[in-house]
Amino acid sequence: MYVPVILGTAREGRESGKVARFVLGEARKFGFESEVLDVRDYGVPATDRSGGSPAAKRLAEKVSRADALIFVSPEYNHGYPGELKMMVDLLVEEYAGKPAAICAVSSGAVGGARMVEQLRLVLIQLRVVNVPEAVYFPEVGKLFDADGEIIDRESFSRRANRMLADLSWHAGALKAARGKK
Amino acid sequence: MYVPVILGTAREGRESGKVARFVLGEARKFGFESEVLDVRDYGVPATDRSGGSPAAKRLAEKVSRADALIFVSPEYNHGYPGELKMMVDLLVEEYAGKPAAICAVSSGAVGGARMVEQLRLVLIQLRVVNVPEAVYFPEVGKLFDADGEIIDRESFSRRANRMLADLSWHAGALKAARGKK
Amino acid sequence: MYVPVILGTAREGRESGKVARFVLGEARKFGFESEVLDVRDYGVPATDRSGGSPAAKRLAEKVSRADALIFVSPEYNHGYPGELKMMVDLLVEEYAGKPAAICAVSSGAVGGARMVEQLRLVLIQLRVVNVPEAVYFPEVGKLFDADGEIIDRESFSRRANRMLADLSWHAGALKAARGKK
Amino acid sequence: MYVPVILGTAREGRESGKVARFVLGEARKFGFESEVLDVRDYGVPATDRSGGSPAAKRLAEKVSRADALIFVSPEYNHGYPGELKMMVDLLVEEYAGKPAAICAVSSGAVGGARMVEQLRLVLIQLRVVNVPEAVYFPEVGKLFDADGEIIDRESFSRRANRMLADLSWHAGALKAARGKK
Repeated sequence: MYVPVILGTAREGRESGKVARFVLGEARKFGFESEVLDVRDYGVPATDRSGGSPAAKRLAEKVSRADALIFVSPEYNHGYPGELKMMVDLLVEEYAGKPAAICAVSSGAVGGARMVEQLRLVLIQLRVVNVPEAVYFPEVGKLFDADGEIIDRESFSRRANRMLADLSWHAGALKAARGKK
Repeated sequence: MYVPVILGTAREGRESGKVARFVLGEARKFGFESEVLDVRDYGVPATDRSGGSPAAKRLAEKVSRADALIFVSPEYNHGYPGELKMMVDLLVEEYAGKPAAICAVSSGAVGGARMVEQLRLVLIQLRVVNVPEAVYFPEVGKLFDADGEIIDRESFSRRANRMLADLSWHAGALKAARGKK
Repeated sequence: MYVPVILGTAREGRESGKVARFVLGEARKFGFESEVLDVRDYGVPATDRSGGSPAAKRLAEKVSRADALIFVSPEYNHGYPGELKMMVDLLVEEYAGKPAAICAVSSGAVGGARMVEQLRLVLIQLRVVNVPEAVYFPEVGKLFDADGEIIDRESFSRRANRMLADLSWHAGALKAARGKK
Repeated sequence: MYVPVILGTAREGRESGKVARFVLGEARKFGFESEVLDVRDYGVPATDRSGGSPAAKRLAEKVSRADALIFVSPEYNHGYPGELKMMVDLLVEEYAGKPAAICAVSSGAVGGARMVEQLRLVLIQLRVVNVPEAVYFPEVGKLFDADGEIIDRESFSRRANRMLADLSWHAGALKAARGKK
């Protein structure tokens, strides 16, 4: 199964990049074909919603092929980053009937839980199935060592695998049904 | 497929009762086995969350057997009715992996859309799959005639059927996968 | 200033009761006149929204007199407890133009942040001003000792006082303006 | 009082531009000094959150001077436009203690109500006071004539004025209190 990791912030010095790499590794170990789709590589001018831009076409190709999606994103002011919303809004049909899980990154203790809720409501409208298991990365500044390795690997691996298993179950169920449409 | 309609308000004079009867009729015509589960019949004291009450046991039996759920509820102050939340919170495992659709009732023009969003987030936590198609019944005081029949039947039937088809597709996909668990 | 603490769960064995007592103590030390309004004492049948019940009248009297409100509530399935919503929905005009702060209680790590978001949206509709400072009590089972005293008093006092100061500022601003209406 | 209108979509052919012009006219008739702050004029690269860009500085100047804010924005996939979120996230302190009202634009019947809810939660975090009166512009494609004039002017003027009066009351209350800080 092809399950890309969408990295939802373009900010300089983003900690979420470390989280995305960790999640990518876990997804591959789990058995998914995966890669990071970096919001930096899918930007289009805010005036353009045609879906005709090269970035939109590349994203359409990736999402069409995907069996499931993983979002890794920080919370900014209790919501999702604007650049992530712009990327998500580029497509419509390509998401339909596919499951998604969200990994939330936060410098504070609450761990991005508000962003998860807002993003879930956006995804439902795109006919994405929200997987209940989310992984929260609170106080992210303390979670990785100087080499960018996650310090409490065992605990976060366990949580990531619970999410991946949940995603895999939903992906299987929905893929079988999409095939019959 | 057994797809009960959960009527989410206990208020005297509730207009949502008419909506629930309309939706029940449409669900049966669509081919679902259905009945109304009235929040009035599933009340327990607010002190009791044991799941051990007779009401909780009856609800568990219904939800366990359900292939999908339809909620019919008004919006009170941009949220769901408290009695509906108490009913929903009675169970945990019984909901898992089943789809739900929401019909929103409102005396105003916006049609209960805020309630839908709040309830969806609750349902995700219970491992329910939210179906994107919702049906909104705005300005409900004008929608039914003196006999309780919906006036613009054709339009609301069309919307209800879009929702029911969406629910049916998800129910089939998830039922097949739950069977394999 | 009179600033009651609304305790939003009626559940047997509720941990939020300890939090409400702690917050009550802090509110009094801050200089507010305060008391706990326990959702257990303001229940009415779910069929009754007339505002004519004795409980609704008692609540109307308290909220009318209040300069600000503090909610202490757990998160159940990412939402507010049903009994709290029923209590809140009993009144309309009495809340208008008054500020509220929310203390969120959770057995998990995220600390009730989703409940805060849902409740805030309900309160806006009631013309309540949401104070941005919230206090989160995550993993509440570990926060109090056997005597019901909060263990890390200094840290939680500091957060509570930040919230109380914020509430006080808004209460002063709005009270002055309500007086001129 | 200076109350700018923030136009929250940059999309080509945006209908919200007409709504913003209508709201601007009403704000001026109400007695506010106003102008449209167009999200197109405040874009910065998604990598830059320094607040040091010329656009961020210009915005900081406008918001610092503002007594209140009016947002005019469409709903995209049940959320706010990404470019609006990027603009909002440019600042922090400048918003504190000021009220905001939201005008929601939608091509559908629900009128952008979901966007309002998500944006309100973002604004609370920025210490903005959400004014309960919102104005919804549903099925916006039918609301303006060929000259860009709103067709049902009387009805929308009445709603806009209710919102402006609400905003004015909050702005007065909060301005007096900010001055005393």
